[in-house]
Amino acid sequence: MNLIVAQSGGPTSVINSSLAGVIDSGIDNDFEKIFVSMNGIEGIINNHIRLVDTEIFTKENMTKKLKARPASILGSCRFKLDDDLDNPIYEKIFASLKTNDIGLFVYIGGNDSMDTVKKLNAYIEYKKIEGINVVGCPKTIDNDLEGMDHSPGFGSAAKYIASTLRSLRCDVDIYDLESVTFVEIMGRHAGWLAASSLVANYSYPKDLVNLLYIPEDEISIDELLEDIKKALKTEKNLLVAIAEGFRDTEGVLSKEVFANTKDGFNHPIVSGVGQRLADLVRDRLKIKSRAVELNIVQRSNALISEIDSKEAYRLGYKAVDLGMTRTNLVPVLRRKDGENYETYYTEVSPDEIANKEMKIPQEWLKDKKTLQEKILAYTLPLIKGEVAQVYKNGMPVFVEIEDFTREI
Amino acid sequence: MNLIVAQSGGPTSVINSSLAGVIDSGIDNDFEKIFVSMNGIEGIINNHIRLVDTEIFTKENMTKKLKARPASILGSCRFKLDDDLDNPIYEKIFASLKTNDIGLFVYIGGNDSMDTVKKLNAYIEYKKIEGINVVGCPKTIDNDLEGMDHSPGFGSAAKYIASTLRSLRCDVDIYDLESVTFVEIMGRHAGWLAASSLVANYSYPKDLVNLLYIPEDEISIDELLEDIKKALKTEKNLLVAIAEGFRDTEGVLSKEVFANTKDGFNHPIVSGVGQRLADLVRDRLKIKSRAVELNIVQRSNALISEIDSKEAYRLGYKAVDLGMTRTNLVPVLRRKDGENYETYYTEVSPDEIANKEMKIPQEWLKDKKTLQEKILAYTLPLIKGEVAQVYKNGMPVFVEIEDFTREI
Repeated sequence: MNLIVAQSGGPTSVINSSLAGVIDSGIDNDFEKIFVSMNGIEGIINNHIRLVDTEIFTKENMTKKLKARPASILGSCRFKLDDDLDNPIYEKIFASLKTNDIGLFVYIGGNDSMDTVKKLNAYIEYKKIEGINVVGCPKTIDNDLEGMDHSPGFGSAAKYIASTLRSLRCDVDIYDLESVTFVEIMGRHAGWLAASSLVANYSYPKDLVNLLYIPEDEISIDELLEDIKKALKTEKNLLVAIAEGFRDTEGVLSKEVFANTKDGFNHPIVSGVGQRLADLVRDRLKIKSRAVELNIVQRSNALISEIDSKEAYRLGYKAVDLGMTRTNLVPVLRRKDGENYETYYTEVSPDEIANKEMKIPQEWLKDKKTLQEKILAYTLPLIKGEVAQVYKNGMPVFVEIEDFTREI
Repeated sequence: MNLIVAQSGGPTSVINSSLAGVIDSGIDNDFEKIFVSMNGIEGIINNHIRLVDTEIFTKENMTKKLKARPASILGSCRFKLDDDLDNPIYEKIFASLKTNDIGLFVYIGGNDSMDTVKKLNAYIEYKKIEGINVVGCPKTIDNDLEGMDHSPGFGSAAKYIASTLRSLRCDVDIYDLESVTFVEIMGRHAGWLAASSLVANYSYPKDLVNLLYIPEDEISIDELLEDIKKALKTEKNLLVAIAEGFRDTEGVLSKEVFANTKDGFNHPIVSGVGQRLADLVRDRLKIKSRAVELNIVQRSNALISEIDSKEAYRLGYKAVDLGMTRTNLVPVLRRKDGENYETYYTEVSPDEIANKEMKIPQEWLKDKKTLQEKILAYTLPLIKGEVAQVYKNGMPVFVEIEDFTREI
């Protein structure tokens, strides 16, 4: 009986830690062969499958290397399965799984991918298929997955964002003149990532990040400019974190910046809000202003949180353990109550995650002080430690797919 | 007799390594007091000066910490001294230096700052001032300083750029569809920084960075789009490095993107070319395209080249050594001929650096293969090693000015 694993959705810096956990667990659980499907479920459909070389793959070498390798090494896809279980795509997928004698398929992904896990299980039930289990393994930098304390991948993105803001603070302070620097951070619907910038303020006597605007805020441009004027009374150089999905209550930003509706990947264009606000500050307040966009480096950076990597690894490992006897499940991590960061693992149905979004709790959003306290308590444990990167000739060395798999 | 040091111009990741070298050399050369001027020469003019606490400052602790601290810890300025030596500003500056019993002023900066060093020395000569020497110490990420092999600060910026491109390659490869990702890199007039992205290709069987466009190129939009179409025949996902100052021969980019002429810091707006090209690829070639801008993180990142830091430190150290007996000089680093990277230190007049720009040699620009070979041979030795960063609670800890200086 064989195991197959795939990665889907946007990358994170620890999605390969989960892959390492899946492969290690697959070896420990005595699967005969371990396959990887390239580009998510598309690899299963198009027969683009590779075999893990378990002679080479050991916990001592490959696991460590995979943990240090950002972005989905198996590639990804944005493939939505049809709601209609009679669509022939399902037959094709399960024919491929049977051909390769697959007993367990682990899909590492976000809320869209959990929709796939859910539908494949619906098909298993519909067709009374036996001997094939399909389980999910969660990931996303956005931290919007329901059913768990935090999403694997968020900790590393938060670590990158907060560390970068700390470096940027060194930069924005250098001139002895008033300035406002907007830093645009990912987050279309929820402010988790932008709010993680507040971690930069931890242990500093004065704030390094002065203001924060997230999609959850309801504020007009005039009020925002008032905030800035007020903040400039005590701080010469403002660093303002802004979620790409922040919009003012009067629709000024929606109207003026985002005339185009789709980017090349068919996602709505949502970036540009930082630059527009910088323009507004310059025009209306006559203050030097500029925008910095952290962009996709946020999800594929090599500054990886050790705890995030460990947790992602364990979720991958547990996905296989779960899938040995059961199907239609996703392992998740929850936090115990109390002062110290203690966690436990449990599992949920993919239905609890699929197509849903976890928001920042309403009570955290009461005021800036509350939000900062809550975000710090929540996020600081998730960014602890750094996964060691190997450098050669001054450059990071990343493991390649050919280093531990071969074509079949 | 006392020493004073200041930093000016744009920050680099090793400008504080030079500061550490200046302070260490000042201690070793038995200066009574070592002062730092905040915000470049403005601190001397406005009496915003701090005293280095040499009880605390030791090579074992502070030097190491300063080397790990990105961006100008003394702040900076953009202050151009009047050509007219009778302007009272000169008298004010030298009065301040005399009040503080300064025997040597070291100015760490780029080509604008070397203009300041030059003019202060012109004033020394004009007024026959004795007992005050003024020397420069070079820095810039742009690598455009004349008179030396490479500019201190360039190596770390190149290391950050090439490493980030290597991570971005992991990201752009994930989807199984054609795409073009433009990465916009600093460089208004010279392509040094953008060309350093080619370092990402070193030791890889196929290029991670597929195409490069720099200000030195003379190419039309149609030709550029032809390049892209051709490259897409052998590579599905293109990563294209583009200097912010790249312009097409027909002025399409100049006309369409840059209607605004000045940013908030009164510099011409030059960024945006990546986004505009992504739009063109999408519109004309009907291929998914997007732009990523590396922005000011390039000059203030905490991924610091160890060799760059060492060299910047030694230049700071040597600036003081030189200034003990002579004035109107700048220590520089040159490369010996031969296969291995060997260097020697010498000095030039600030006049050789001030207001000049070193370009990429014309013979390197012959073709892509030549440029890549030349850039690799030139840049690889400059990015070797990593300055260790201290992390606490998952965040980098940077030394603060209050940690080793006090108000006077």
